Amino acid sequence: MTSRVVVAERVLRANDELAQGNRARLEAAAVFSLNVMASPGAGKTSLIERSIRGLSDRIRLAVIDGDLATSLDADRASAAGARAVQINTAGQCHLDAAMVGRGLDALDLTGVDLLIVENVGNLVCPVEFALGTHRNVLVASVPEGDDKPYKYPASYRGMDVVVLNKIDLLPHVPFDRARFRHGVEVLNPDVQILEMSCTTGEGLGAWLDWVVDQVEAHRALKEGRGGRA
Amino acid sequence: MTSRVVVAERVLRANDELAQGNRARLEAAAVFSLNVMASPGAGKTSLIERSIRGLSDRIRLAVIDGDLATSLDADRASAAGARAVQINTAGQCHLDAAMVGRGLDALDLTGVDLLIVENVGNLVCPVEFALGTHRNVLVASVPEGDDKPYKYPASYRGMDVVVLNKIDLLPHVPFDRARFRHGVEVLNPDVQILEMSCTTGEGLGAWLDWVVDQVEAHRALKEGRGGRA
Repeated sequence: MTSRVVVAERVLRANDELAQGNRARLEAAAVFSLNVMASPGAGKTSLIERSIRGLSDRIRLAVIDGDLATSLDADRASAAGARAVQINTAGQCHLDAAMVGRGLDALDLTGVDLLIVENVGNLVCPVEFALGTHRNVLVASVPEGDDKPYKYPASYRGMDVVVLNKIDLLPHVPFDRARFRHGVEVLNPDVQILEMSCTTGEGLGAWLDWVVDQVEAHRALKEGRGGRA
Repeated sequence: MTSRVVVAERVLRANDELAQGNRARLEAAAVFSLNVMASPGAGKTSLIERSIRGLSDRIRLAVIDGDLATSLDADRASAAGARAVQINTAGQCHLDAAMVGRGLDALDLTGVDLLIVENVGNLVCPVEFALGTHRNVLVASVPEGDDKPYKYPASYRGMDVVVLNKIDLLPHVPFDRARFRHGVEVLNPDVQILEMSCTTGEGLGAWLDWVVDQVEAHRALKEGRGGRA
């Protein structure tokens, strides 16, 4: 067991160094970035499509899509109008900083304001691997159930925003919003919880405004006008 | 990278040996067993609850529940009437054979016909780790989307049954059953796909019958009356 732990620590340390390199490249290009994580099917790709279309007149967006197989997600992001690169992880259950680095090699960041990295659909493993991105976003969804913050605490901790997607299904499934919110807030008192439906568009405005605020605060900081890094 | 691969191979080989030990213990106790895998929130626990209640007059059932945290799932299985043991994986993204072995240590298998192992909610990692169980069950769910067999092929390959849960939500979400079925069958031509709703109970009978058939075939084999191991 000990040798496994040592190897794991070495892998994570190497990953952190590569993540710092990614962050430096993003800063040099003045690109703000999000790491979007979720269970399979929670709605990461739909949220990204909605973001590309909803922000097209305000923000220039690029996407790095991580998946075990297929280029379905990057195809959807491209169709929505973003520069998109698909990374197939060949069985690996999460994106790591080296993969995102190869994604950055393949992307022209000229004129890009925001990079969204769509992680592999997995509520457990991605959170362990820093990618060099600026903010962590978790997409939860109503049909997954209100107990998920309690059962996956490590994944809900350290998030800057939790999106609760598929609220259009609230009339059709048992889901206690208060129980969900309590579970999220106990783990992370400062987290923002944004309820929405990527199907109907309800609640999407607050998410788009949050993204724009983050991009503008980052730009202000780069230009020496203060604000949060 | 090479040393990581070697370590991973050693871990998997050690796991396989422990899995064989689990299988031998199950055979000695004449217990048939299922490894139930799924994304978070697809309905594993609900399916197990429904199975315990629906089979109470036909089969004596025990449950080993794997979760990162909490005993919520084992509590539900106990409340439904099964002997249940909760295993908290302390951050590990899947059950392994050693954990299931400790679960077997804690379970009295006397008189038990069927052991259901509920894996950690994760569509990627559990499939890599043999547990010593007899059959693999994947629980998919309608709101996850019809593209999942294409995006997670390794998880759909090697399944004996794919349960498509939450069909009561078909009127409310976009889901192409033919596309889903095609994706599953391309990967695994012999798989059975059982559509159901653990909320309404629709389609549950076919699942319960399949479970009983499997348990009886295993018992017949043990008693030297032939059938599939």
